[in-house]
Amino acid sequence: MADLNKPVIVLVRPQLGENIGKAARAMLNFGLTEMRLVSPRDGWPNPSAGPAAAGADSVLADAKVYATTADAVADCAYVHATTVRKRGVTKPVVTPDEAGRQVHSLPGRHAILFGPERSGLETEDVALARNILTVPINPEFGSLNLAQAVILVAYEWSRMGREMAGAGAALVQPTVEEILPPAPQEELEGLIAHFIKLLEPRDYFLPEGRAEATHRTLRGVLTKPGWNHLEVRTLRGVLTALARNPRR
Amino acid sequence: MADLNKPVIVLVRPQLGENIGKAARAMLNFGLTEMRLVSPRDGWPNPSAGPAAAGADSVLADAKVYATTADAVADCAYVHATTVRKRGVTKPVVTPDEAGRQVHSLPGRHAILFGPERSGLETEDVALARNILTVPINPEFGSLNLAQAVILVAYEWSRMGREMAGAGAALVQPTVEEILPPAPQEELEGLIAHFIKLLEPRDYFLPEGRAEATHRTLRGVLTKPGWNHLEVRTLRGVLTALARNPRR
Repeated sequence: MADLNKPVIVLVRPQLGENIGKAARAMLNFGLTEMRLVSPRDGWPNPSAGPAAAGADSVLADAKVYATTADAVADCAYVHATTVRKRGVTKPVVTPDEAGRQVHSLPGRHAILFGPERSGLETEDVALARNILTVPINPEFGSLNLAQAVILVAYEWSRMGREMAGAGAALVQPTVEEILPPAPQEELEGLIAHFIKLLEPRDYFLPEGRAEATHRTLRGVLTKPGWNHLEVRTLRGVLTALARNPRR
Repeated sequence: MADLNKPVIVLVRPQLGENIGKAARAMLNFGLTEMRLVSPRDGWPNPSAGPAAAGADSVLADAKVYATTADAVADCAYVHATTVRKRGVTKPVVTPDEAGRQVHSLPGRHAILFGPERSGLETEDVALARNILTVPINPEFGSLNLAQAVILVAYEWSRMGREMAGAGAALVQPTVEEILPPAPQEELEGLIAHFIKLLEPRDYFLPEGRAEATHRTLRGVLTKPGWNHLEVRTLRGVLTALARNPRR
């Protein structure tokens, strides 16, 4: 993740130390490391933050404290203000994915502002921002807490980085077995022939008038999965076993 | 959101009532309403869940409890298992956005499984699933809690719904046959049980020491295709025929 443009996460007048710790944990899950605190209510450091960070202590240890929001973003080229409410401010409103795209595509430091737990950002904080960042939530139940808002923004920053780096990179590497291509047609035909060989003498294809359609249906079912070489081999073993007489 | 295909959120053996409440809150933020609980550790209802749900009480009130994961997904056509660990299971691994896309594009009920807080899903829970759903996180610090995993999945379901509604015109209309969803998990289990019933007395699962792995391999092969109701019925007919003695 070294080359990606990482945004600064700015918590403006956060109230509970526990929530600062949870935000740090949310950040580090997606590789974000720089936290800034504007006038935290209970001072800093805060003993409740560490336990809630669940191991993301380095983020807390490096966190810097500022007296005002303007100070905290002074070195940033772009400021994004998260808020659920539209405040009649004439700024572009973007979703987390669009904000993630901007962080990766617009060179310069980006800051993302999160307001206090209860009240959210004040108008003068929002005024510093280029964008309003809003998570589109259920209009009948909007109840995102601070750490949840941070994790969605961090997730989208990470996801958009992979997406923009190339479509392939957006996928988790599959396991080796999944990479196996479907078995060659020859093996599939061998499997189908094996089924037919066992089914024919057991009158599966009767009555005669339905035989062709029944063959076609069976072939359709067996062709659908695109089984790989190992899977075809497993099924050949199954058929061999089924042809045996049962114990008892 | 009425027309969107909503996945069922299945919490498998959840431990703390508080986390069940937080998961409900996470769901409802993005419009998900159906929660199922598999054998919750402290029983159900749980007095700690309500306060943590922060108003998402309707989700908790409607939550249903099941004894096993298989029971909880019996009516579902697609099962996605969230896990951070790669378990050498030969199933496709998808990210939350891809899973969200699948829920919207593959008709039929989808279930998304989340494991217990400490340990995550067991191998036998994962075995029920078509996909492994993994959130790509910082390889050096992966620490998503249950509600955070739920919120990321719910967010992506919601986001992909909007994205696909916008891109809807570009989608190719599938043919009628393709529209048939995979058979519900219940029917798939019936098919697997039918295979096992025939294979067991024919010593397919010997030697004993390999039996578990052999069962898993067979289940993997049969789970892969996502056969629909008609296809499962065809295969049940095939098995019935194979159990007969051949003419001659």
